[in-house]
Amino acid sequence: MQIMVGRADAAPSFALRHFIVEPGGHTPRHSHPYEHEVYVVAGSLAAECDGSVKEVSGGDVLLVPSGAVHQFVNQSSSPARFLCVVPLESDCGEDVPGS
Amino acid sequence: MQIMVGRADAAPSFALRHFIVEPGGHTPRHSHPYEHEVYVVAGSLAAECDGSVKEVSGGDVLLVPSGAVHQFVNQSSSPARFLCVVPLESDCGEDVPGS
Repeated sequence: MQIMVGRADAAPSFALRHFIVEPGGHTPRHSHPYEHEVYVVAGSLAAECDGSVKEVSGGDVLLVPSGAVHQFVNQSSSPARFLCVVPLESDCGEDVPGS
Repeated sequence: MQIMVGRADAAPSFALRHFIVEPGGHTPRHSHPYEHEVYVVAGSLAAECDGSVKEVSGGDVLLVPSGAVHQFVNQSSSPARFLCVVPLESDCGEDVPGS
């Protein structure tokens, strides 16, 4: 994960991060008290969010609501890349990790 | 401009928008009381921000601070595409247009 714009750049309210998921790889399956806005730059991913799974690929977006269990799995043979925007502060008023 | 995730999707704090700038085209040269976090998806643009101009292309990011005069000009022969993330609410507490 690479923070492309975040606290260190004096971003005032949200951070823009870049992720690469290699073939067969996945992100953690978890939930947290802040949302994600995800944009798939390249490749394809099986995106689980709040009990459903859908395939997303380059140009697709996904809103992961605060509290929703989510995971991205790369079931393809090519790397997948996506952007994930998060607020700097969670719904609980704590610093969001990786912001 | 296309709002990919915003108020209509129940985004809680920021909106993800997609812009296309055709060859010879440009965005408005202006400033406003909220920031942009910009990710260039494809193509190249001359990005003016706060008195300086730099070339940005696919994969580059730019933080446009609140209040900074900015403009994106496509001086190339191909369309340029970028994402622009904005808060839902400006520094003055007003709804951000296009969120």
